[in-house]
Amino acid sequence: MLRYTVERLRNHIKRMHKKIILTGDRPTGPLHLGHYVGSLKQRVSLQHTHSQYIMIADVQALTDNFEHPDKIRANIIEVALDYCAVGIDPHVSTIFVQSYVPEIAELSVYFLNLVTVNRLMRNPTVKAEIEQKQFGPSVPVGFLVYPVHQAADIAIVKGEVVPVGADQLPMIEQYNEVVRAFNRIYNTQLFPEAEALVPAKAARLPGIDGKAKMSKSLGNAIYLSDSAEQVQQKVMKMYTDPQHVRVSDPGQVEGNIVFTYLDVFDPYPDEVAQLKEQYQKGGLGDVALKRRLIDVLNSFLEPIRARRATYAADRAAVYELLKEGTAKVCAVADETIHSVKEAMQINYW
Amino acid sequence: MLRYTVERLRNHIKRMHKKIILTGDRPTGPLHLGHYVGSLKQRVSLQHTHSQYIMIADVQALTDNFEHPDKIRANIIEVALDYCAVGIDPHVSTIFVQSYVPEIAELSVYFLNLVTVNRLMRNPTVKAEIEQKQFGPSVPVGFLVYPVHQAADIAIVKGEVVPVGADQLPMIEQYNEVVRAFNRIYNTQLFPEAEALVPAKAARLPGIDGKAKMSKSLGNAIYLSDSAEQVQQKVMKMYTDPQHVRVSDPGQVEGNIVFTYLDVFDPYPDEVAQLKEQYQKGGLGDVALKRRLIDVLNSFLEPIRARRATYAADRAAVYELLKEGTAKVCAVADETIHSVKEAMQINYW
Repeated sequence: MLRYTVERLRNHIKRMHKKIILTGDRPTGPLHLGHYVGSLKQRVSLQHTHSQYIMIADVQALTDNFEHPDKIRANIIEVALDYCAVGIDPHVSTIFVQSYVPEIAELSVYFLNLVTVNRLMRNPTVKAEIEQKQFGPSVPVGFLVYPVHQAADIAIVKGEVVPVGADQLPMIEQYNEVVRAFNRIYNTQLFPEAEALVPAKAARLPGIDGKAKMSKSLGNAIYLSDSAEQVQQKVMKMYTDPQHVRVSDPGQVEGNIVFTYLDVFDPYPDEVAQLKEQYQKGGLGDVALKRRLIDVLNSFLEPIRARRATYAADRAAVYELLKEGTAKVCAVADETIHSVKEAMQINYW
Repeated sequence: MLRYTVERLRNHIKRMHKKIILTGDRPTGPLHLGHYVGSLKQRVSLQHTHSQYIMIADVQALTDNFEHPDKIRANIIEVALDYCAVGIDPHVSTIFVQSYVPEIAELSVYFLNLVTVNRLMRNPTVKAEIEQKQFGPSVPVGFLVYPVHQAADIAIVKGEVVPVGADQLPMIEQYNEVVRAFNRIYNTQLFPEAEALVPAKAARLPGIDGKAKMSKSLGNAIYLSDSAEQVQQKVMKMYTDPQHVRVSDPGQVEGNIVFTYLDVFDPYPDEVAQLKEQYQKGGLGDVALKRRLIDVLNSFLEPIRARRATYAADRAAVYELLKEGTAKVCAVADETIHSVKEAMQINYW
């Protein structure tokens, strides 16, 4: 009887425990529609079902921007404003700034002992990024070791779920290797393994030039903070079907970025289906089509802009929110480091 | 006139400023006569002319002992007792424990961005140690990056003088490269370059087996905490001249470790000179010679043992001394990190 009650209580507690998410962004520029589709939208809903930590990863951004800390500095608040603008509630999610949690650095030092140099060199994500960033033989050590630092980001809040793109899966593998090693060597169960939350394939939005990925560095992004005019200009330059010259010409729908965006953002999929039919037959001009997308995007962005403007009117208050979130994480981090040192037996007094 | 006064004041302040020393030991075992001759003796006198920080480098010791933190844990207090025993005054020198200064880890993360992987791989000290420790292809990342962490150790207290063996000179070179890069990139003069203080060649004491270096891992060390009996046993096993079988045989002085030790520790060099002559001619037995060394070493070690016993009687008080020293360093470290973040412009609030 008693045992039955204990079991029920346990299950109840288990149901009550909201899984811990760690996610975040490098503050190297304002966030764009690609971020919205790929992660921000998901965060807005996950914040109610999970205990969600969102990290503004300035330390990580510095690993390949260490000569431009001013850029990072300027984008801390922009990213925070973007979060609030899309509906991430800073009183529900915990938004924090990485560099203000020194315990992450502290933990990463102990994690660095648990990974071999060879293992790091073989990490496919790191390999690809080193190539992409064209460091040549001059990879900064900070960049090479960032998967280990990232492991400390997750571990410091004991993250259980980490939303990542498919290309980032090796990072979660690396994380699980590190915490398994830690738990084994120091005979503890301190760190749960993390589960990758990979978004559906549709969640990757192409840039306005039709390139696979929307990104600041490629200059093909529509930002959440773009004005109605900027959105109009960018959509007008959008890649469609180069063969579709006159209105009466039949046009291609596949690979036509305007339709890709309508599929994602247009609230009336039936009408989009009709438009596709018309476009393929001929008789629907690019300009008319783009006007629809401009309306759709601006309707979508309008409440985001409005919320952004409200928050942006009092930037000091936004910094206060970041301070509060960071203080919450510091308290958690302090507890984690305490347990880490206890497990490692390096708590001498 | 005014200018003259200002200049005099400046020079006065300059004379008043005691140069900052950072030094320390990895707490992997008790300290031995080799440590005394190579560094401890020097520290006892430097503490009065310099502002001396002595770090018990547990974090660094963990880079190649991460599976045996219990060994590190046990040796923290032993090393502290050895310091106090030889006459390092914990109220004059600042003795601290590395892992309790998280700002070192924090600073090292920013320093990691300023060093390339290739540069680290070329560091002669690291190369030699990786070979010596036989890591093979499994060098822990923590071990590879330790010169950068060591740079953070020095920088956190703005060290100006670092006593090192000649084999460690590349570490100081690495340090100066890192702080030059930091000062240049972040347009600051925060970190002075450090000067290596290399001991005289005579400062390396061979092991009792005649091997070049006294070391715990070679099992050829006489510890500062050895009892009179242990010293006697070790000296009796000491390497002399294998050809010197009978008392009347002429013996070799060069490479005769007993004489090497007498040269270092015997307070009567004239008598040692006479003994050498007698030994070379024949008529002086190894046992008689070793008895003298036993007396010399035990006379030397007696006050050290006595001081050690006094401190060891109240271990809690020694931990208090470590706590006090560490708190002093934390205050300095906090200031340094504050200036670092200011220089990097990553102080957002």
